[in-house]
Amino acid sequence: MDLWFSEKHTPHLALTYQVRETLYKTRTDYQDLAVLDTYQFGRTLVLDDIVQTTVKDEFIYHEMLVHPAMTTHPSPQKALVIGGGDGGSVREILKHPALQKVVLAELDPQVIEASRRFLPELSSGLDHPKLDITIGDGKEFLKKTRGEFDVIFVDSPDPIGAAEGLFSPDFYALVHRALKPDGIFAAQTESPFIHGPFLRGVLQAVKGLFPQTHLYLAHIPTYQHGMWSFTLGSKVHDPREEGVTQPPPGLRYYNGEVRRGAFCLPAFVRELVEGE
Amino acid sequence: MDLWFSEKHTPHLALTYQVRETLYKTRTDYQDLAVLDTYQFGRTLVLDDIVQTTVKDEFIYHEMLVHPAMTTHPSPQKALVIGGGDGGSVREILKHPALQKVVLAELDPQVIEASRRFLPELSSGLDHPKLDITIGDGKEFLKKTRGEFDVIFVDSPDPIGAAEGLFSPDFYALVHRALKPDGIFAAQTESPFIHGPFLRGVLQAVKGLFPQTHLYLAHIPTYQHGMWSFTLGSKVHDPREEGVTQPPPGLRYYNGEVRRGAFCLPAFVRELVEGE
Repeated sequence: MDLWFSEKHTPHLALTYQVRETLYKTRTDYQDLAVLDTYQFGRTLVLDDIVQTTVKDEFIYHEMLVHPAMTTHPSPQKALVIGGGDGGSVREILKHPALQKVVLAELDPQVIEASRRFLPELSSGLDHPKLDITIGDGKEFLKKTRGEFDVIFVDSPDPIGAAEGLFSPDFYALVHRALKPDGIFAAQTESPFIHGPFLRGVLQAVKGLFPQTHLYLAHIPTYQHGMWSFTLGSKVHDPREEGVTQPPPGLRYYNGEVRRGAFCLPAFVRELVEGE
Repeated sequence: MDLWFSEKHTPHLALTYQVRETLYKTRTDYQDLAVLDTYQFGRTLVLDDIVQTTVKDEFIYHEMLVHPAMTTHPSPQKALVIGGGDGGSVREILKHPALQKVVLAELDPQVIEASRRFLPELSSGLDHPKLDITIGDGKEFLKKTRGEFDVIFVDSPDPIGAAEGLFSPDFYALVHRALKPDGIFAAQTESPFIHGPFLRGVLQAVKGLFPQTHLYLAHIPTYQHGMWSFTLGSKVHDPREEGVTQPPPGLRYYNGEVRRGAFCLPAFVRELVEGE
């Protein structure tokens, strides 16, 4: 059967994947969840018809969400991931030898279950003894937390539906409060090509809280327009300085070059960042 | 009418554009040529069913093909573009005040005609008094040329059909011979995600001729997987040093940050470049 899945990146543009098989499809309490086996990108997690992660290119997203902050912090011992139920971010965090504990706060337990079952490359760290999994709203979790984490990662879907609250100024204030005095957070913050005004709002909110606020970029083929942004907020440490913590070995995207290059922004993105 | 154009980036993946109107469609002596008006990217030049350039994102490709080499050369007075009949590269080259003459060697005159008629944003420089247009095979043009150009740009389609010869070792040898003793060339060299073995072959060929051989990257949403590579070969000047020539004002992608960041390669691309 010549089966194709089409993800509308905008109302006028779609990325269209040939599908070998629909491995799983369900309606959870929060969203439509599917796992497709695609020819080009292998197994692919789809939430509400939006590709979240694929086995072939997930390494870029997860390495780039996690390692810039982890290598900026001199001793990242305690980490929190909000969202990220597929386990990819946890897997990357666990590569850092300083780490003592990581908490995963995921809203939808069925994302974790689907990943355990269909995406072993991502979920491999989900049974690690250093990991605590808590099911529930990340924002509610943060409300009970003060000065506890060295690093926090916001590994969320697009800012629509359940994830919308994970991009608001009061959410970033809770993240700030949950970090230690030299803590760092990083969040995925969409495509500068498409989500300019949204991104500007995020940066303004983060700048109001963190003296070090920096946007950085990665090439992610399955995300809109292939250019993806991350926002890093740091209370003390400057991510543009040479990393104090070495990147773990065996990474496929992040390295010392990317550490320098990812913060170098094209003119139109710089304008977005610096603008009013 | 709900019209969509689907470009297969691989046999298993397509980028699909909603089309307002097919403005032009013809068979030239060399290829199928179409100009579509797309909702997402505006007017779009399509050759043999492959998107060559769109009005909305062409600035990235043309700025990134041209300005790294132009700002590395201390005084780029004489330039050659092989391919590039749409005029976008010429437009960027003409922004440099040192320039005295640019030659455009395009195989297919109907690309130039279509661009003049439908893509004024790109073809704006095609009537400039500093420009000479020559119609014919770029390789044949180079065979008659020795030590003449400061900079040469290979602005070609994908390495299939008529353009295949523009990626061969003997072609690069002709480029080398056509350059002055401190000349520089840059070429578009496809996506590292998809065309790894091809790219490795190109780099080996260029390294055999140019002491300075460097790959650099840009985010181009309409090209395969959104990550695009360029290869720069330089007889003397190192493009990674701070540019001796300032970028012209008003660019939307290339700036001093991109100059530094574009040569910083992710681990898997670095491996491709350094590998056997």
